[in-house]
Amino acid sequence: MITLTTDFGHRGPFIGVMKGIILGRCPAVTIVDLTHECLVHWPAEAGFWIARSYAHFSSGTLHLAVVDPGVGTKRGLLVILLNGHLFLGPNNGLFSEIASLPESIVRLVSSATIKNHQLRNNSSTFHGRDILAPIAAALVTGELSFEECGRECDDYVGDIVEKPELLAGALVGQVITTDNFGNLITNISREDLKEIQNPLILAGGEKIHLRNTYGDVEPGRLLALINSVEMLEIACSERNATETLGIGRGSPVKVIEA
Amino acid sequence: MITLTTDFGHRGPFIGVMKGIILGRCPAVTIVDLTHECLVHWPAEAGFWIARSYAHFSSGTLHLAVVDPGVGTKRGLLVILLNGHLFLGPNNGLFSEIASLPESIVRLVSSATIKNHQLRNNSSTFHGRDILAPIAAALVTGELSFEECGRECDDYVGDIVEKPELLAGALVGQVITTDNFGNLITNISREDLKEIQNPLILAGGEKIHLRNTYGDVEPGRLLALINSVEMLEIACSERNATETLGIGRGSPVKVIEA
Amino acid sequence: MITLTTDFGHRGPFIGVMKGIILGRCPAVTIVDLTHECLVHWPAEAGFWIARSYAHFSSGTLHLAVVDPGVGTKRGLLVILLNGHLFLGPNNGLFSEIASLPESIVRLVSSATIKNHQLRNNSSTFHGRDILAPIAAALVTGELSFEECGRECDDYVGDIVEKPELLAGALVGQVITTDNFGNLITNISREDLKEIQNPLILAGGEKIHLRNTYGDVEPGRLLALINSVEMLEIACSERNATETLGIGRGSPVKVIEA
Repeated sequence: MITLTTDFGHRGPFIGVMKGIILGRCPAVTIVDLTHECLVHWPAEAGFWIARSYAHFSSGTLHLAVVDPGVGTKRGLLVILLNGHLFLGPNNGLFSEIASLPESIVRLVSSATIKNHQLRNNSSTFHGRDILAPIAAALVTGELSFEECGRECDDYVGDIVEKPELLAGALVGQVITTDNFGNLITNISREDLKEIQNPLILAGGEKIHLRNTYGDVEPGRLLALINSVEMLEIACSERNATETLGIGRGSPVKVIEA
Repeated sequence: MITLTTDFGHRGPFIGVMKGIILGRCPAVTIVDLTHECLVHWPAEAGFWIARSYAHFSSGTLHLAVVDPGVGTKRGLLVILLNGHLFLGPNNGLFSEIASLPESIVRLVSSATIKNHQLRNNSSTFHGRDILAPIAAALVTGELSFEECGRECDDYVGDIVEKPELLAGALVGQVITTDNFGNLITNISREDLKEIQNPLILAGGEKIHLRNTYGDVEPGRLLALINSVEMLEIACSERNATETLGIGRGSPVKVIEA
Repeated sequence: MITLTTDFGHRGPFIGVMKGIILGRCPAVTIVDLTHECLVHWPAEAGFWIARSYAHFSSGTLHLAVVDPGVGTKRGLLVILLNGHLFLGPNNGLFSEIASLPESIVRLVSSATIKNHQLRNNSSTFHGRDILAPIAAALVTGELSFEECGRECDDYVGDIVEKPELLAGALVGQVITTDNFGNLITNISREDLKEIQNPLILAGGEKIHLRNTYGDVEPGRLLALINSVEMLEIACSERNATETLGIGRGSPVKVIEA
């Protein structure tokens, strides 16, 4: 199985063409779209979602990610092995969280591997099609092994988002992304939150209490919860918290003791 | 086969992760996205589309729907058998039309079924992933039978949209949804329309005549027609009726005799 | 394999239902979405993308396209054979580029073929579901052969977009479409551009230089390049050229000697 995560949106044939390349070389593979609406040019969101999704797929799945503002420049490509899952994408911070797990083995895809697998008429602007899709297909068919991809690599590009910080007894993080409902998803994890006893969340000028689920408050009321990927999320019951609070990606979120 | 209908949109990995869960347990199933852009928090639209789409799929298909503002609260889950099709989703009015058909058998999913099939680390906010996807997979593999799901249930949540009414010789309905073209799709069916001889449609302050298809009037002119799901639809030839008329979901539509 | 290209967007069950029809008749086929966000009512964009994508799919693939403002009127349907690929869609200019290639054989789908394959309860507004999906399924299963579809046809609807012109030493084209990044994709090809030595691009009141890839200029700076489908594209590094320049589909783009 292969999952695809990009910032291509759904306009144009870009994702479809990558699937054409993969299926032409590997007709039996099942391809699942993780999401194609990652914030453009910002690899952190794609990495955030892949790190919190991959374990729901079978071992042996390859997770291909293309959020790649440096396409066609000298940025490298990484392939990572973690618990039987493979991850393939640009070396630009996208996979920093996955790569830094102790069980991960990280390799830098070599020029020889790229040369051997890229399309003959390759472009400088669409490596998802010309380089990454053929390498992904070669990895899932077994034509190319993980070990053959290139040298092990410890100096990959690291985190591009700051972690939450404890400052004067308050935990300070930020909104990483929002979903279709306008829920605000932060970089503060359930673990991080344990630093604060009886937590009260401050965001967009409001004081917000921690609940269990959206329906625990009346429609239209703000709440915070630990969401399905174990992160602190701010919501507005049956409404849109992004619109209600007037905040969004990158906005600060503070947790204090109530 | 499994169809998926949600209000998740395409941001974030939520639909992809549900597919990962299903395919991990049932690699041979084909999953078709019906739509993920239902109006958020409003189960009626998902139910409207599923009721008008399911018959185009093969018998044996399971239709999984997640528009579920009550996720994590005590609302139950339904599974329905109709002409060899299975339907699975929250008991919140979403399936009221399907459930009320005389051929339908409706069961309330029991706590035991949920307990036996849910993911070990389940959340309060994403039952699509943690409960519904594993139950759907168990139903299509035959690991779980329809009869085992739970007791038959006649007191499911009923209609959440009023039906069109005949008032003083006029048929009064409303816009249920709009499509990508801005066509306004109403809750008035071909059958309902038979109440009015020589019908004239009133909407957004305009008088609109019934035609056969969009190209029957000049580009830019309003028309009404019975659409491909047998419902009254208001359109603007090669333009956007939603923008032209300035109306949308929930707006009243009246049919009088010309 | 079947690819799907439409202007249906992702609201409503329209694409899903077409897949249900196809998979019911041909369960083994793999269906790939090329794009469903073509400009509505404008067949040229769908044709532009299909012509620049089909070769990345295996020979034997059928490319089904539905951008069809004339649905239900007397416009015909075309089926085209090119290098082992089949193309199926309305005769409205969508396939003018594909059809005009010397290797292409174009047939007009006969009334008899439509009658034999359409759904029993067919509508006047959704031929994608009622006529095109069943014919596509019959073609990929071999139940219907290309030759049986109808007579050869040379008088299909031709180009609906003007080609770039050389006027007083300048090459004048236009923006065909934009992508999710706001890159402006023109109807000027690499071949066309050879007419101008040392080219300088004029668009939106700016003078823009030709580069190799997005990262060749600083973030926020405009550039032009030959993109992954061999067309002239105007971009703004890590920004949105559509917003930066305030131009879009149909806007003129001029190439002069620097």
